[in-house]
Amino acid sequence: MAQEQRIRGVLAPVVTPFTKDLAPDPQRFVAHCRWLLELGSGLAVFGTNSESNSLSLDERLALLDFLLDAGIDPGRMMPGTGSCALTDAVQLTDRATKAGCAGVLMLPPFYYKDVSEEGLFRFFSETVERVGDARLRIYLYHIPSVAIVGISPGLVERLLGRYPGVIAGMKDSSGDWTNTKTMLDNFATSGFDVFVGSETFLLANMQHGGVGCISATANVNPAAIDRLFRSWQEADADEQQQGLDAVRGVLSRAAMLPALKAVLAHYRNDPAWVTVRPPLVELAAAQVQALIQGLDELGFTIPLT
Amino acid sequence: MAQEQRIRGVLAPVVTPFTKDLAPDPQRFVAHCRWLLELGSGLAVFGTNSESNSLSLDERLALLDFLLDAGIDPGRMMPGTGSCALTDAVQLTDRATKAGCAGVLMLPPFYYKDVSEEGLFRFFSETVERVGDARLRIYLYHIPSVAIVGISPGLVERLLGRYPGVIAGMKDSSGDWTNTKTMLDNFATSGFDVFVGSETFLLANMQHGGVGCISATANVNPAAIDRLFRSWQEADADEQQQGLDAVRGVLSRAAMLPALKAVLAHYRNDPAWVTVRPPLVELAAAQVQALIQGLDELGFTIPLT
Repeated sequence: MAQEQRIRGVLAPVVTPFTKDLAPDPQRFVAHCRWLLELGSGLAVFGTNSESNSLSLDERLALLDFLLDAGIDPGRMMPGTGSCALTDAVQLTDRATKAGCAGVLMLPPFYYKDVSEEGLFRFFSETVERVGDARLRIYLYHIPSVAIVGISPGLVERLLGRYPGVIAGMKDSSGDWTNTKTMLDNFATSGFDVFVGSETFLLANMQHGGVGCISATANVNPAAIDRLFRSWQEADADEQQQGLDAVRGVLSRAAMLPALKAVLAHYRNDPAWVTVRPPLVELAAAQVQALIQGLDELGFTIPLT
Repeated sequence: MAQEQRIRGVLAPVVTPFTKDLAPDPQRFVAHCRWLLELGSGLAVFGTNSESNSLSLDERLALLDFLLDAGIDPGRMMPGTGSCALTDAVQLTDRATKAGCAGVLMLPPFYYKDVSEEGLFRFFSETVERVGDARLRIYLYHIPSVAIVGISPGLVERLLGRYPGVIAGMKDSSGDWTNTKTMLDNFATSGFDVFVGSETFLLANMQHGGVGCISATANVNPAAIDRLFRSWQEADADEQQQGLDAVRGVLSRAAMLPALKAVLAHYRNDPAWVTVRPPLVELAAAQVQALIQGLDELGFTIPLT
């Protein structure tokens, strides 16, 4: 375990581009992934901000194959593979693991509410057993504001006890530092790698034994977030954190996901990026204008590599 | 519109049997469907109590085909076809419609929370347009305690205005009679058929212009619920309602879905019925014992046709 080189640092829940008829656009997707990699970000494809649950299983499998066929390094990928349906979760997790992905980011099944810790344990346990591959690395995805169903410390303890090494860590998108701290304090020394779900907590996470962040805004601001990850022990870390927070503050004034797409569309001069799948809607023109104005005032831009 | 014979009455969200390895069991499924039909219940397959969202799209399509191949009348079926993914919802809705199903019961996309009415309107609108079949009848499924995302009167009004006839009605599982009454008062005279999500409200629903109920307990108590539906204007209707409520009260002492499966397993002497897919868990032995004792005390049984 101690020798294993696990994925760390900054990962983007890669936004998924759509064509006008709402089909995934694999060419724009792979181009965005290449751009993210060049600027230091790993690829948490199929996350919340990827509209992953708005895609069918077949659409996700096809996009994953497209990335692999395009030569994107699976060692820099942590696809989201959680699902309400055990069979879907197993199929996608299996494919990602056999392709050599660094890990998978698994939502708990999120349709039924108030489910028991035992039921969630069985879901993850069945996934591990059915995939049956020693390379499997599962990162548990805690995002209670969206999934409602969460990942409790008790569940982590049971899973880590039963599948050490395979249960590799978590993404904590609770937005609650107390929860992240609990996870770090309880499990970080057991080979359980904690990513925060927002760069707002990146410095704090690194200072307390975490390994990075998986954040929506890494889709548009990857280099600056990666810089803090690499230099969090340096003198200007607090200043860097404040700079990241300012950009995120502007991006958070509108709904995050359409805001990210609006920013990509604007700075790349590529309007096709704005398309989202229902039930999401794109930003109104006035919202886009306010967003860009706010970013311009910060001197923000995205490099066109 | 006025001449059309729409599906009415009592429908069961048909529980889905699983084999020991958690695969759907099509033989037990079709046998249970036949039993329900014989006792007067229609088939709302792929509902919340069917563990539908715990099934992959392919598993749902295969079960639907199996029922059709077995000769089950699609005119008595209202499959659940809602999904987080537009493409899944369209594919399943299209298949059910082309097969001649009486209607489809559609959850809103339920992953993202706090979505706009516009976003939900677009989701249903895209589904209608893509299926593009005049036979399509959509029943909107409002179950805010589970899906969190609900169906508001404003959304119904927009959809009904844009797609009259296609938007055929709803299932209201809010458990809030005030909400049901609002839907009835606003839309029942516009060809919008309201089913309540529990037989607790069946008599009230019929008295106020509703058309029936789609209730979990119809899986084990179909004949008695159907009897009230057919005789709600008779003198013993209140007494019948009290009898239904007593049975439901016992069934509600434990988690409803595993309770239904435990009841089927017990009265049919068929233990295979107890299996549920994670994240659900079967009842503990003591819970089953209390459940059966409570039902026995009511003189409850299920007829073995």
